[in-house]
Amino acid sequence: MKKLTITLSVVAAFGLSAVASDALIEKAKQAGLKPIPENKTELYKLIDNPKNPVTDEKIELGKKLYFDPRLSKSGLISCNTCHNLATGGVDGVDVATGHKWRGNPHHLNSPTVYNAVFMEKQFWDGRSPDLEDQAQGPIQATPEMAATKEHVEKVVNSMPAYVKAFKQAYNDPKFKPSFKDVADVIAVFERTLVTPSRFDEFLNGCDKALTKKEKEGLKIFIDKGCASCHNGVGLGGSMQPFPAVGKYKYANVGDFKGDKNGMVKTPTLRNILETRPYFHNGAVWDIEEAIKIMGETQLGVKISDKEADKIKAFFGALTGKKPYVRYPELPASTDKTPKPDLN
Amino acid sequence: MKKLTITLSVVAAFGLSAVASDALIEKAKQAGLKPIPENKTELYKLIDNPKNPVTDEKIELGKKLYFDPRLSKSGLISCNTCHNLATGGVDGVDVATGHKWRGNPHHLNSPTVYNAVFMEKQFWDGRSPDLEDQAQGPIQATPEMAATKEHVEKVVNSMPAYVKAFKQAYNDPKFKPSFKDVADVIAVFERTLVTPSRFDEFLNGCDKALTKKEKEGLKIFIDKGCASCHNGVGLGGSMQPFPAVGKYKYANVGDFKGDKNGMVKTPTLRNILETRPYFHNGAVWDIEEAIKIMGETQLGVKISDKEADKIKAFFGALTGKKPYVRYPELPASTDKTPKPDLN
Repeated sequence: MKKLTITLSVVAAFGLSAVASDALIEKAKQAGLKPIPENKTELYKLIDNPKNPVTDEKIELGKKLYFDPRLSKSGLISCNTCHNLATGGVDGVDVATGHKWRGNPHHLNSPTVYNAVFMEKQFWDGRSPDLEDQAQGPIQATPEMAATKEHVEKVVNSMPAYVKAFKQAYNDPKFKPSFKDVADVIAVFERTLVTPSRFDEFLNGCDKALTKKEKEGLKIFIDKGCASCHNGVGLGGSMQPFPAVGKYKYANVGDFKGDKNGMVKTPTLRNILETRPYFHNGAVWDIEEAIKIMGETQLGVKISDKEADKIKAFFGALTGKKPYVRYPELPASTDKTPKPDLN
Repeated sequence: MKKLTITLSVVAAFGLSAVASDALIEKAKQAGLKPIPENKTELYKLIDNPKNPVTDEKIELGKKLYFDPRLSKSGLISCNTCHNLATGGVDGVDVATGHKWRGNPHHLNSPTVYNAVFMEKQFWDGRSPDLEDQAQGPIQATPEMAATKEHVEKVVNSMPAYVKAFKQAYNDPKFKPSFKDVADVIAVFERTLVTPSRFDEFLNGCDKALTKKEKEGLKIFIDKGCASCHNGVGLGGSMQPFPAVGKYKYANVGDFKGDKNGMVKTPTLRNILETRPYFHNGAVWDIEEAIKIMGETQLGVKISDKEADKIKAFFGALTGKKPYVRYPELPASTDKTPKPDLN
């Protein structure tokens, strides 16, 4: 008898779920949530920058430079130090920490590089229009990689293998890589760092991709209004007023005020369970607390513990499959390579 | 006529070379130089530690921990920070620099992790008998990863994926990883980081593996006496008096005096052109200068510029093929994972 009951409820659950899911998928799409395209041509169009087209040669070269600590003044810090591909594309500390162990002066947290290509703007204050522009920032910032453009150009041009790779990538035997070119190929690599998840499968019509609890969380997420900012392919990426309606509980951590209009970039929710701590100032470690604060501060709604728990479950479905990355073997330094400077 | 002469000299050169090579291979073997075994069973025997056997499960788990910055107090420094597999297994700075940007108090340079398994002892003063013991050091050292044993144990046990991997690696469903276990699996991964080179092919009888200049360099290397310390599979790894006969030109850099008998571990010469700067204190950036200093300090012989240039050419043949390493995807931190502490 018990067995039969279980069988019946399973059937019932599946039947209900399938119907409910069609409606939920429609609801999610209406709310502006979009999947990472499964079709490679479509995906390529979405991640490409016509001014700096994505090619295999640039991806491979950009990957090497992304992992090369010699671009920094000290020779110890690479892009991957703060945007670590092994740990959700972040460093896992509240405040980005770089050259001479200096923290970001505004106590800003490193955003994830995964799916950064889907953001409308880059940096918390949105001051960069794209990854090509963004990549130039941290390399030069004093508390991050602390390098000059000249340092980067000297480093790259001192190693024949790098120069050869640039010549091949740009199909120009006379190519002499500039600082901008270095940032450009790093950006190309970053454009490929997208992480399709179970949520994308669900949006593409696979009902079983989400559990019942995850679907409930998604529904609450939409009903509460979270998708009014966390939308699009990136589930985030647009500039929004912050705080919008309430008082931000951790306003005393750091002195960041957003852009000149007080607008702050909405972070992506993809892989959010891997990218603690949360908010621009890394003030919160618990995702449920972060969800509830967002409800109060941005939407003026109360999110209960139970609701936050379900939204968290939905977030689990946003943990994506990471691209396969072979750890690179970098060209050896030469006599012309600038010496690292730890000071 | 000119063409004929060239052809004849080429034939003559090849003929001479083959004969000379047989003698040179014999000479190298007599001098104690040994190849990395081509045979996998032989290689396994050489790199294995019967007390901590090398298995695929431990290699994969050890790799993850090798790259995991959360083992450090700050959450920012991993084994790979100072022993970077992308840059010859070293950090490329003169003095190892870690937690809070502190340099090694004795101004010691990070030795390469590649082929470290072939060293008789570990650390510059040889205080560790093997990699298992060595791996415990930098994790706990204040100016390196600055962690406590308890921190490391809490970190690893806070992530179910790590605990599961240990249980599988040790085939024990009740396994609870200790600090020693973490060091043990890291050491297993390190044991696999061997880099066969053209020099090994040459020692195994392939005449063409070395150029004429490289062979001349090898001959000078042996004749000058360099192989009296730089021998074995690792071309180094034994404890030797330093300085042995001369005065070390850079004795004023750092305060390291070797072990209690003034003995210092001979560094490996494998991949030496990728592991600048040189010596225990990283005082010298130019390999030819390093070669000449070694002649004076350790052997009491003068090595000319021309001879140093040829020895350098031979060193080029010691640059080895690096193992294929997929950059790992690490388990996500949990609420139980200790928070990073940047102070």
